[in-house]
Amino acid sequence: MDKDKKFVEAITSRDEDFAQWYTDVVKKAELIDYTSEKGFMVYRPNGYAIWEQCMADLDRRFKETGVQNVYLPLLIPESLLDKEKHHVEGFAPEVAWVTHGGMERLPERLCVRPTSETLFCEHWSRVVHSYRDLPMVYNQWCSVVRWEKTTRPFLRSKEFLWQEGHTMHATYDEAEQRTLQMRQVYEDFIRDSLAIPCITGRKTESEKFAGAEATYTLEALMHDGKALQSATSHFFGDGFARAFDVQFVDQNNELQYGFETSWGLSTRIIGAIIMVHGDDSGLVLPPHIAPVKVRVIPIAQHKEGVLDAARGILQAVKAAGYTADIDETDKMPGWKFSEYEMVGIPLRIEIGPKDLAAGTAVIVRRDTREKTTVAISEIPNRIGTILEKMQQDMYNKAKAFLDAHTSSARSIGEMKENLERNPGFVKAMWCGDPACEEEIKAETGGATTRCIPSEEEHISDVCVCCGKPAKHMVYFGKAY
Amino acid sequence: MDKDKKFVEAITSRDEDFAQWYTDVVKKAELIDYTSEKGFMVYRPNGYAIWEQCMADLDRRFKETGVQNVYLPLLIPESLLDKEKHHVEGFAPEVAWVTHGGMERLPERLCVRPTSETLFCEHWSRVVHSYRDLPMVYNQWCSVVRWEKTTRPFLRSKEFLWQEGHTMHATYDEAEQRTLQMRQVYEDFIRDSLAIPCITGRKTESEKFAGAEATYTLEALMHDGKALQSATSHFFGDGFARAFDVQFVDQNNELQYGFETSWGLSTRIIGAIIMVHGDDSGLVLPPHIAPVKVRVIPIAQHKEGVLDAARGILQAVKAAGYTADIDETDKMPGWKFSEYEMVGIPLRIEIGPKDLAAGTAVIVRRDTREKTTVAISEIPNRIGTILEKMQQDMYNKAKAFLDAHTSSARSIGEMKENLERNPGFVKAMWCGDPACEEEIKAETGGATTRCIPSEEEHISDVCVCCGKPAKHMVYFGKAY
Repeated sequence: MDKDKKFVEAITSRDEDFAQWYTDVVKKAELIDYTSEKGFMVYRPNGYAIWEQCMADLDRRFKETGVQNVYLPLLIPESLLDKEKHHVEGFAPEVAWVTHGGMERLPERLCVRPTSETLFCEHWSRVVHSYRDLPMVYNQWCSVVRWEKTTRPFLRSKEFLWQEGHTMHATYDEAEQRTLQMRQVYEDFIRDSLAIPCITGRKTESEKFAGAEATYTLEALMHDGKALQSATSHFFGDGFARAFDVQFVDQNNELQYGFETSWGLSTRIIGAIIMVHGDDSGLVLPPHIAPVKVRVIPIAQHKEGVLDAARGILQAVKAAGYTADIDETDKMPGWKFSEYEMVGIPLRIEIGPKDLAAGTAVIVRRDTREKTTVAISEIPNRIGTILEKMQQDMYNKAKAFLDAHTSSARSIGEMKENLERNPGFVKAMWCGDPACEEEIKAETGGATTRCIPSEEEHISDVCVCCGKPAKHMVYFGKAY
Repeated sequence: MDKDKKFVEAITSRDEDFAQWYTDVVKKAELIDYTSEKGFMVYRPNGYAIWEQCMADLDRRFKETGVQNVYLPLLIPESLLDKEKHHVEGFAPEVAWVTHGGMERLPERLCVRPTSETLFCEHWSRVVHSYRDLPMVYNQWCSVVRWEKTTRPFLRSKEFLWQEGHTMHATYDEAEQRTLQMRQVYEDFIRDSLAIPCITGRKTESEKFAGAEATYTLEALMHDGKALQSATSHFFGDGFARAFDVQFVDQNNELQYGFETSWGLSTRIIGAIIMVHGDDSGLVLPPHIAPVKVRVIPIAQHKEGVLDAARGILQAVKAAGYTADIDETDKMPGWKFSEYEMVGIPLRIEIGPKDLAAGTAVIVRRDTREKTTVAISEIPNRIGTILEKMQQDMYNKAKAFLDAHTSSARSIGEMKENLERNPGFVKAMWCGDPACEEEIKAETGGATTRCIPSEEEHISDVCVCCGKPAKHMVYFGKAY
């Protein structure tokens, strides 16, 4: 019996070839399957279960802030998409067009929604009449289609799952507050449930959402030092309301335009979970978001009493309120361990004849592999503490990594050097000119402005690129 | 203060014009809004919240039977849809086609999924290898598109929300059992959560799903005497597995084809809730599925202590585990009552100065308007009982209606007379010939075979239409 025999021999080392490691994990943990249509993916049970956890968690947080769920159509008439100039310029090049319905050619093309600002505004233009009807604080869980050329599971695909929140308010200030509030909800969720630290701030003009007045972003750092835009919250002012004629009568009986926001988080976030926490044995799921918290693994289960004890532990763990399963297959323990490690279940509980004789079992953490021998009767009481400790340790480790991979630079040369030696975020001053963003991107082989934080540090007086007076401190980084 | 003043004066009487009554309820209860694209609807917060309740309830029931959720692509290549002959014949005429992605014409058209058997089979053909991989018991929550010509909210639209379950099994028997098991899950859900009785059985050849070996259906009876197909469960044998080459190695190391099922329930069911339980004041939601169980309505809320007492009741009701809200607007009580009635919240709790002085409040049931005066401190204890009684009474009432509107006939003349005098289901014998189904439909102005029940009664020896020897007792009815 070779305990160390691996279920998956073929997984690539994370430090050897990060991209291949990622693909290996996605496939071997059975998160995703490809389809015959390039860029469209099957979310398999293990992958979709993570998204279900994210949905339940985030939906609860949304509703606590007064969000109501709705569902708007999948298809958008071309004339509707065309109504807001910046928006259509941003999205028209990457949408899929429906031209035929049934056996007939449609009088007007319909695009498969790439995002739904236009539909929400059309709806509001019909149902908003008075200030009493406002605010409308809506969200929908759905899929969207964007015709991407290069695709990767979770990170970029022609169709992806997400939530898109859309709100309409009577005042500029209230809408702006909602934009920031939802940014905060995302930060809390990503930090507390996914154990992922983010840098956060506003996007520059060139990076913001098509049609937005301001875009707020959360940027996480992957293990390879690349950034992943993990959620965004947009403030539109009254631009869309004017384009779609969303007007209401205010308290003074005067006609006013409404103020809009939108905010979204997608299945991309599963890519972040993989790339922040995963290791050479596979996925490592933060306890708060793991669909299954505990797997019980009987060892030498043919020996008297072992299987019964294992099943007893499973029941006790479930009764204590933790999702759990058991591996009763006739595979070798080494195989069971590596399967369990590959799918990233936070804890495993091993029980074999020797443990049974001692009245104990061994709890093993997925992230550190730390083992704790516990009296069987004590297991339900101990699990909560171990899971919470693991959650906190995972966050701390990711935060330490983020801090260690954040540097500052006073010249493009320094920025390049940092990005090569210690890939991650680079803080630098910027004059505000998009031409400098372009030049930095070209010079560094792809580093872009990730965000302008709300609290800017003073790195120097001048732009890292052109030397003119600096307007902002910006986080730069290469991004997915 | 006119307690009887109605929030909605304009609602049409249910018995006067059922179709208009239905549309009025859907609009005034703010369940649905239309869009500029005919046949596509907005599910507003009140409407979507009902669907969220259905999803949560049904999803729990599914998972108890071992179902795993997944998500498969929105778009299906035409060549994939074409693989199963009966299936493509059934669906090709009513799908929407994507012909362009981004700025380019696609090499092959993609249809927006009308249902996903083809995608599931393609996925299984890649991931099923051994009997150890089976069964695959999957479900997805999504929307589908069918290019219907005439559309009505919830009942028939170009896009609708649903769940589609798809399973693949190693044996014929296991697949058949799963088909029947899911039919039972639907029956339990519709009866116990929606308080709707159904007749149930197999579809005839002409009414079954495109490509299925057998289709099981649940048929509910609406208040106007028309049937609504509320859920279906299909058994495919190995037809799809052969068309898509889903093969596995069995325990004897031989290559076998898998056996498939699929089963679905859609937002149509919300139409059934409206048309079974609604009345001339609006929606009546069964307590088990109502998103909000209780609304607290303060009366003369400017009087000292009333609003505080109302808020205290709200908190106590919530603390007891019931979803609840409060109407604190300055509208007249009559308006508040009719608004509450329109949206169908099961219970309202009225509290005014006189109640407060007596230390009591009045609990009013939405369905019967029955009032119960209760000591304020007793409210949390009483609500559960009243809600359960209401749920049971609503079912009993619907069951009595179904029974009273089910008749039997020995001739087409008798069937016609029954359908006119007492619209509903008519039990009759049938020879098994589709020509007789056609003739009955033509003669009766639209009555079709709804299902062949598992326990057939003996009405007579011969077919109600042609007089030849009868094979089955069938439920006939006009349907939505």
